[in-house]
Amino acid sequence: MFRRSTLLSALAAPALLSAASAQPQPAAAAPAQVPGVYRFKVGSFLVTMVHDGYARRPVEGLVRNAPVEEVRAVLAESFLPTTHYDGVYTVPFIRAGAHLLAFDCGTGGQMSATAGQMAANMHAAGIRAEDVTHVVQTHFHADHINGLTTAQNVAVFPHAEVVVPEAEWAWWTDTGNETRTPEGQRAHFANTARRFGPYAGRVRRLAAGAEVVPGIRALAAYGHTPGHTLFHVADGDQQLLVMADTTHRPELFVRRPDYQSLFEFDAAMAAATRRRVLDQVATDRIQVAGYHFPFPATGFIGRDGNSLRYIPASWSATL
Amino acid sequence: MFRRSTLLSALAAPALLSAASAQPQPAAAAPAQVPGVYRFKVGSFLVTMVHDGYARRPVEGLVRNAPVEEVRAVLAESFLPTTHYDGVYTVPFIRAGAHLLAFDCGTGGQMSATAGQMAANMHAAGIRAEDVTHVVQTHFHADHINGLTTAQNVAVFPHAEVVVPEAEWAWWTDTGNETRTPEGQRAHFANTARRFGPYAGRVRRLAAGAEVVPGIRALAAYGHTPGHTLFHVADGDQQLLVMADTTHRPELFVRRPDYQSLFEFDAAMAAATRRRVLDQVATDRIQVAGYHFPFPATGFIGRDGNSLRYIPASWSATL
Repeated sequence: MFRRSTLLSALAAPALLSAASAQPQPAAAAPAQVPGVYRFKVGSFLVTMVHDGYARRPVEGLVRNAPVEEVRAVLAESFLPTTHYDGVYTVPFIRAGAHLLAFDCGTGGQMSATAGQMAANMHAAGIRAEDVTHVVQTHFHADHINGLTTAQNVAVFPHAEVVVPEAEWAWWTDTGNETRTPEGQRAHFANTARRFGPYAGRVRRLAAGAEVVPGIRALAAYGHTPGHTLFHVADGDQQLLVMADTTHRPELFVRRPDYQSLFEFDAAMAAATRRRVLDQVATDRIQVAGYHFPFPATGFIGRDGNSLRYIPASWSATL
Repeated sequence: MFRRSTLLSALAAPALLSAASAQPQPAAAAPAQVPGVYRFKVGSFLVTMVHDGYARRPVEGLVRNAPVEEVRAVLAESFLPTTHYDGVYTVPFIRAGAHLLAFDCGTGGQMSATAGQMAANMHAAGIRAEDVTHVVQTHFHADHINGLTTAQNVAVFPHAEVVVPEAEWAWWTDTGNETRTPEGQRAHFANTARRFGPYAGRVRRLAAGAEVVPGIRALAAYGHTPGHTLFHVADGDQQLLVMADTTHRPELFVRRPDYQSLFEFDAAMAAATRRRVLDQVATDRIQVAGYHFPFPATGFIGRDGNSLRYIPASWSATL
């Protein structure tokens, strides 16, 4: 115990830089960002959000039905850069009893220099590719399926069943559909064949409404691609909607649900689906995970006057 | 290379659960949350946000000038629980050249079972207490200064200078002020003496407007406490405002800046300061760090009709 009178007179002495603080410290080695990993529970299910990085592109051309200066203004409302657009990727993994599911599987490090961190972040999260029992694909765009295989065409998930929406599979495995596909998306036929090749014999086609495993059910949300599918996750009284590409970054496409992105297969159908899904999760206050939402890519859709807004879930130090 | 015709016929086979995915995997050991650490740059300065955990309290009594049911409704707008209120703590560390500064220093693990994670998170971030050159205190509430010392009154930062706002120091080191202090805050006199005791001879009193180190300047923001002080951080053309307790959680006190929290020393002055600071950072679009903001506790204040809104900075995989 110290006596306050002694303390106060000592503290009242003229303030001086201590010898220690005046000694320069060696600069730390060039630091990197921490691993992009975040965990939360949905009932007894453990969700681990695993970041795969981002790809930077121009703002020009991103939104097909709005002037670029208006798009920049919407980005600025959310304090995002207006000179470029970072498309981010985050993969939800869900441990549900004996199952370990990945919902999409990242870029596989084969798309942009700033993406492909999923493997390193899985390692940081203690998730091994060989323990994944199901890779559940929401649709077959390259940034969602390229992580299935290495650049050398080897399967990344040696023991996983790959679960695919029946409608998505039907479209991209039938090259007869090529002429009915927007020119910019025709490469997905060959990429589909390439990425699923090493999984022959362990692909399960899932109908809309069917369960992947108990508690995890497919919901049709067509438009972004012909078979774009969401997954509703429920355990006990808790739920999560894996919202995939219902919207690209929410700062643009939740704020302006009628914006049509460059990435849509059928822009009008995608916009109608987006309105329907966003309205439902806002009304029912359902927590969502968005593949292109800012990490950790989970939160809620709130109403905001005539518009909507993404509200990230509050980060919690405990599960 | 594989031939597509072979692939497609293989893939067209009836979907089956693979043997591997049908085998139950052993459940993982009880998982914990990842460390609460996040990094970003302000010019050449490296900011590391280090989480200290949270303390849970009832919603009742938190806001002095609004009905509790209204407060619950505001919490619900941000999808926060309405049955309780988690006060969260995050300490910004800034590496500025040879200096390593902490802005406040957490609860020291001496306040609630769910707080006191700063030391473990510092370790995860590669920050050693012995390398900290300055502990910069924004004010002397217990959740900001208790981390200075262990429960046994040993200094946690063996080499740091402790930088304190002159006005804050003057108030809490003069027990003659006790009768002019709200009854609920009188314990801070003894706690101030206790926490600063082991730092005798290395406390620097800083006037409003003065620099801690080049680029980091004190700004008076009195009201929350008599000497509550913010720190403006600038390097190159980038800046950050360490906003301390200008507001408690933004979901309540940025959305409703006139709400007076339980924690204020002079509620009217605190509200006036809050209005002034929020208006400035919203107008000038200055990035802020908030001690009680949800981790990683950095972002922006945007205007939203007649109100304001906290918009978290977009998480970035690169620095």
